[in-house]
Amino acid sequence: VAKRLEKFKTTIFTQMSNLAIKHGAINLGQGFPNFDGPEFVKEAAIQAINDGKNQYARGYGVPELNNAIAERFKKDTGLSVDPEKEITVTSGCTEAIAATILGLINPGDEVILFAPFYDSYEATLSMAGANVKCVTLRPPDFAVPINELKSAISKNTRAVLINTPHNPTGKMFTREELNVIASLCIENDVLVFTDEVYDKLAFEMDHISMASLPGMFERTVTMNSLGKTFSLTGWKIGWAIAPPHLTWGVRQAHAFLTFATSTPMQWATSVALRAPDSYYEELKRDYMTKKAILVEGLEAVGFKVFPSSGTYFVVVDHTPFGLENDIAFCEYLIEEVGVVAIPTSVFYLNPEDGKNLVRFTFCKDEETLKAAVKRMKEKL
Amino acid sequence: VAKRLEKFKTTIFTQMSNLAIKHGAINLGQGFPNFDGPEFVKEAAIQAINDGKNQYARGYGVPELNNAIAERFKKDTGLSVDPEKEITVTSGCTEAIAATILGLINPGDEVILFAPFYDSYEATLSMAGANVKCVTLRPPDFAVPINELKSAISKNTRAVLINTPHNPTGKMFTREELNVIASLCIENDVLVFTDEVYDKLAFEMDHISMASLPGMFERTVTMNSLGKTFSLTGWKIGWAIAPPHLTWGVRQAHAFLTFATSTPMQWATSVALRAPDSYYEELKRDYMTKKAILVEGLEAVGFKVFPSSGTYFVVVDHTPFGLENDIAFCEYLIEEVGVVAIPTSVFYLNPEDGKNLVRFTFCKDEETLKAAVKRMKEKL
Ligand SMILES: CSCCC(=O)C(=O)O
Ligand SMILES: CSCCC(=O)C(=O)O
Repeated sequence: VAKRLEKFKTTIFTQMSNLAIKHGAINLGQGFPNFDGPEFVKEAAIQAINDGKNQYARGYGVPELNNAIAERFKKDTGLSVDPEKEITVTSGCTEAIAATILGLINPGDEVILFAPFYDSYEATLSMAGANVKCVTLRPPDFAVPINELKSAISKNTRAVLINTPHNPTGKMFTREELNVIASLCIENDVLVFTDEVYDKLAFEMDHISMASLPGMFERTVTMNSLGKTFSLTGWKIGWAIAPPHLTWGVRQAHAFLTFATSTPMQWATSVALRAPDSYYEELKRDYMTKKAILVEGLEAVGFKVFPSSGTYFVVVDHTPFGLENDIAFCEYLIEEVGVVAIPTSVFYLNPEDGKNLVRFTFCKDEETLKAAVKRMKEKL
Repeated sequence: VAKRLEKFKTTIFTQMSNLAIKHGAINLGQGFPNFDGPEFVKEAAIQAINDGKNQYARGYGVPELNNAIAERFKKDTGLSVDPEKEITVTSGCTEAIAATILGLINPGDEVILFAPFYDSYEATLSMAGANVKCVTLRPPDFAVPINELKSAISKNTRAVLINTPHNPTGKMFTREELNVIASLCIENDVLVFTDEVYDKLAFEMDHISMASLPGMFERTVTMNSLGKTFSLTGWKIGWAIAPPHLTWGVRQAHAFLTFATSTPMQWATSVALRAPDSYYEELKRDYMTKKAILVEGLEAVGFKVFPSSGTYFVVVDHTPFGLENDIAFCEYLIEEVGVVAIPTSVFYLNPEDGKNLVRFTFCKDEETLKAAVKRMKEKL
């Protein structure tokens, strides 16, 4: 294995989903629904396949999809973007992240992450030869420690990577926090890469896109995907929105990482993004019910549950149950209780920082959530 | 844009396909069929979507697909591989190439390419910080210049990248050539990365997989895909087969480049790969007819056509028509004749080497091929 990837282990999501299958455990680990995506989107994919839309797409996206993404972004943020010059369609948001980082970051550049963070961020930065600096969001509210952020910025800082709503904590960056980050970035000529795949799963406050703040569009790459919003995580359609000078880098990396993305799934995504507002409202309502079931259940089991404003995840403190750390707790939970959660220590540069916390997802049907809570009540 | 990608231009396939649309030209450039893939494969994708196979696949592939790839490889090469430990499913062969290179090559490693080469090879090697050494295959037969290869190998050589059947020339590596390359690689402890996406489009001789040569499996990554064999280039399902110690590197890069690949398309690919022999025979028969139409047509137009044994490409010498180089010729061909071909200078480290050659594809229906020939007869 190349040195750039030496320190990384099998991604925790693969490890945990494999263990779930092996132990017949209820999987509240990796973030994929156990219910299906909407019929109208599946129908659109079938239509595209039957219509013979099965050859290479244009590298940066089927024009219909680039247009639909631009319309959606306009609705969500008020910003008009050029679908031909400012949007790149990728194989999921994971590829958008990789293309953004490999396309725009040079060896030796510093990039700031907020820990805990989705594991691909650090690994991809390592592939690019970047130096990672980390600012830690701490419970109970996971607020941005502004002074730590300030001292993390140096003359070598090229970008700050944010993720709002935030996986794994469910934290949403407030307007005040985004404003401070924005002025620091403008002042220090720093880019922002923002992963917003959970933007439609914002329950307790409104989602704010960094790109919509004054002066920020020109220095921001906004990433999103189909999967979380449309419960079709397996289709792997994502995108990056950025001004032309940044889009150029993203597209160059994308052209050589995957060249283009599944054509029929792109057509279907263009239909999905034109869903009526009622689709998004219902999605949110459904997830709020699920969230309530899981959060109340976890509290009744005896966890300290940290408030989550968005995403379909909640983070809890497992220490009342006396296991030595998050990994030991998750192993016990799988083997003795039959429930899978995600240990959070893998989301920190310093694993110690996550040792008290584990993440549960509520993107499962209500019965499954209730069954998981029941198992924990009985066996924890 | 990051320095690693600075020297690369918009990939020629995107440039040429865009020009084809703009000028209403007949596109014999980028290698995608203008006919559809087989019904039974499309049906399998639709079935998977309807069956709710729409969430994240296992990162390295849906088990059914890993099994089908292993069976296919056994049939084709006689080699038994472990579908769980030696196969990684990727988003097309382009991602297999990227994951192989980023997962196994360190900055400063030397990698040998045979020019002309598919443009992603050089770009991805640049992303990995590798030093590219180039051995040129020259017309008329594009034979491997063994002495040049020998002197290209140094103590820093980590891998040789081969592509057989070879894009753009249609050359197939002979058993003698593969044997020599194999002994050089064993002697010098060098890996082989082999792109075999055109293995089922072998017309004049049998395809030979480098991995099947004695002692080679353990040092070879074999890459292939669905798209060319099943006329579904837009589905973007590829894979890499390699012994576990190499698969580890490929999987680690893949996990962070795209994580996983489209689930329903993976299910459909598992059905495709179990096609009866008659499917492959018919495919070959069809393409031999198309090839004859194009080759005879190009000769009648006045090109010198170099013999192509495999792929759906042929390379010609355009100099009888008096244009100054391949780029000028292709521009003239699009604007004045209404036909798109691919200039080959972009496939060489030194563009001068390709200035007399352009590539045409015959993966189009017979009428389209005839119409293109007619235009060239009339206007060239
Ligand atoms: C490939 S897993 C992507 C992110 C996610 O779903 C998770 O954090 O569980
Ligand atoms: C992304 S284009 C892939 C290769 C090919 O089809 C070509 O060489 O035309």
